[in-house]
Amino acid sequence: MRNNTITSPRGFRAAGVACGIKENRALDLGVLVADSSCTAAAVFTRNRFCGAPVVVGREHVASGKLRAIVANSGCANVATGERGIADARTMCARVSSAIGASAREVLPASTGVIGQFLPMTKIRSGIDAAVASRSSSAAAGRRFARAIMTTDTRLKQACERVPRGRSPTTIAGCAKGSGMIAPNVATMLAFLTTDAELPARTLRRLLAEAVEPTFNRVTVDECPSTSDAVALLASGVGGKLASGRAVASFASALRAVCESLAYQIVTDGEGATRVLEVIVRGARTAGDAHKAARAIAVSPLVKTAVNGGDPNWGRILQALGATPVTYRPERVTIRLDRTVLFTNGAPAARLDAHKLSKIMRRRHVPIVVDLGAGRAADRVLTCDLSRQYVTINADYHT
Amino acid sequence: MRNNTITSPRGFRAAGVACGIKENRALDLGVLVADSSCTAAAVFTRNRFCGAPVVVGREHVASGKLRAIVANSGCANVATGERGIADARTMCARVSSAIGASAREVLPASTGVIGQFLPMTKIRSGIDAAVASRSSSAAAGRRFARAIMTTDTRLKQACERVPRGRSPTTIAGCAKGSGMIAPNVATMLAFLTTDAELPARTLRRLLAEAVEPTFNRVTVDECPSTSDAVALLASGVGGKLASGRAVASFASALRAVCESLAYQIVTDGEGATRVLEVIVRGARTAGDAHKAARAIAVSPLVKTAVNGGDPNWGRILQALGATPVTYRPERVTIRLDRTVLFTNGAPAARLDAHKLSKIMRRRHVPIVVDLGAGRAADRVLTCDLSRQYVTINADYHT
Repeated sequence: MRNNTITSPRGFRAAGVACGIKENRALDLGVLVADSSCTAAAVFTRNRFCGAPVVVGREHVASGKLRAIVANSGCANVATGERGIADARTMCARVSSAIGASAREVLPASTGVIGQFLPMTKIRSGIDAAVASRSSSAAAGRRFARAIMTTDTRLKQACERVPRGRSPTTIAGCAKGSGMIAPNVATMLAFLTTDAELPARTLRRLLAEAVEPTFNRVTVDECPSTSDAVALLASGVGGKLASGRAVASFASALRAVCESLAYQIVTDGEGATRVLEVIVRGARTAGDAHKAARAIAVSPLVKTAVNGGDPNWGRILQALGATPVTYRPERVTIRLDRTVLFTNGAPAARLDAHKLSKIMRRRHVPIVVDLGAGRAADRVLTCDLSRQYVTINADYHT
Repeated sequence: MRNNTITSPRGFRAAGVACGIKENRALDLGVLVADSSCTAAAVFTRNRFCGAPVVVGREHVASGKLRAIVANSGCANVATGERGIADARTMCARVSSAIGASAREVLPASTGVIGQFLPMTKIRSGIDAAVASRSSSAAAGRRFARAIMTTDTRLKQACERVPRGRSPTTIAGCAKGSGMIAPNVATMLAFLTTDAELPARTLRRLLAEAVEPTFNRVTVDECPSTSDAVALLASGVGGKLASGRAVASFASALRAVCESLAYQIVTDGEGATRVLEVIVRGARTAGDAHKAARAIAVSPLVKTAVNGGDPNWGRILQALGATPVTYRPERVTIRLDRTVLFTNGAPAARLDAHKLSKIMRRRHVPIVVDLGAGRAADRVLTCDLSRQYVTINADYHT
């Protein structure tokens, strides 16, 4: 079987171990180690109470160079003050001394409960075990992806190959959701690798461009996390991208990887049974399109209606009407997939509730709003709101 | 037993009937009729897709005079175009011709499903029956309050008496919730009566002042409704408020009535088991205080934690951190009731999870955030998010 994990681009090894942070002996610590120094770029959460790993990670990635990533689940190392920062630095130092690199070339990441200190004894021995067992196998890549999961029920991986001569450029990634998801400039944890050779400045631009329409357009519960980070490491083993066209192909493959991971995140949103895609067209500005799409996507009334498969489209109208966006209500058209619900200021004639309900019960429910106010468009992906979401979050003990 | 309903101020009669809009034969149409013309003020939703009764109501209350209110539940008459407007006018005309007033002196209100036309034959005979049976009894006041309920499980009424000579000034009100609640400038339906004599201009100012810190500070699901309206009718039967002090006492009693109704609305929020009061102090501006309090109050992660009685306070931090408000994280103090959770950038020492959990399981859970950035304060009331909320809204068939 072909390796489609983060170790598929040449020059990367990974590992995932269970070091005891999670009580159920699940994998909870992963390392990704490049054979030599990579150019790197990352984007992070804008949450003001960002975690210690985000503070340290920002510092380390500023140079545009990384050798490794160390990530744990089960404890987010957020709201932990100076001690938390020291712990994140210790994680980096432990990895770097084992692989013979500088601590500043290691990106730390943690996800899980907020407000608790990392169990550093467990973390230290976990790092030692992970570094020692690192491998370029697909199994190792999967173990890394599994080690960063929290309430995720599914592994989230994506891989794209851009043809070039005899050996294609590969871009791969893995991500974790699945609650506290409403990325703003960055997102949950997502780690991307490639064997292309690209300067850090280009990498930063391409990553920002890929993140904005993908990770930054999904929401599970409209709660931007304290720990969000997306990092991209380029080993350069596969050589330079020679032409502008090669860079464009790379950018498009990178966006496809981000899009796939973002989609996997909403599909596996806490308690999710369906994906809801809100598409807004005919907006006066891009900002208006984004605001309108997001307002509908975050509405608990729309999300519960989708959960119940109930074509209660008045709630789409309600959510849109509460948003300060430029349009005239009588020019707005709302569709469920291709069926018109509302147009010219009134419900469409002959609405078939049974047919609408069938569309609402699909795995992917598209809501299309045309504001009739301009030419800008945007879309936001979300999932339905289920009893299971409440159960997961009411019983997620600190 | 003393009459504490909307018919307790002198000069008002009410009625509630079941005219068949709701399938279960519950009361679904109410009228409130004053013995003679009242000065009146009202505030309405800012939702752009506001209902036909809101459009007509705004027009009618502009004169500052009203004789009656006609309200139905079960169908909101929203997104119904010109036909909806005509139906709302017909409701007013039917009442006014029966009581001998102008149709412009009647305020219409409807609540329920969006996107359906009113069953006008039922409405017409309901109005006739209601007007004919109107009475100043407490039972009639309660029937009116019951006739405007949708998913509400409890009657919401409040009454205050301001002492003056031999006969006090009375202010009474009733309201309905309990989903699609996030008032912006106005709120759900709330109807207030008083026997004081006040010019419409004063009434408008006092109503706006009373609504802002009360109805406009509650949220159930942060979905501002298309049908919100708060109306205040002053019969003047009790005579003028002679002094500035008398007006101040009246204003304070009016605020108490609004506060009580607003609190009843969150207590009976869809699926609610607890009230969550988010108090923000030490903000740089009033706007900052409001934004921060609201960000925490609308967080589904905070609301589900309160539902589970789980002291997962990291989520308060997460919600605050995602809000663009001026403060330094290390100056922020977060308390659950009087227990400090987070201060000086780190968790408080010796947090007793068992004690915190006990506070979280009270009927009223106060979260107090001091931003350490200034002197402004605000607070927002909400309820927890339960599986029952999802059940109600996933199964609320159109």
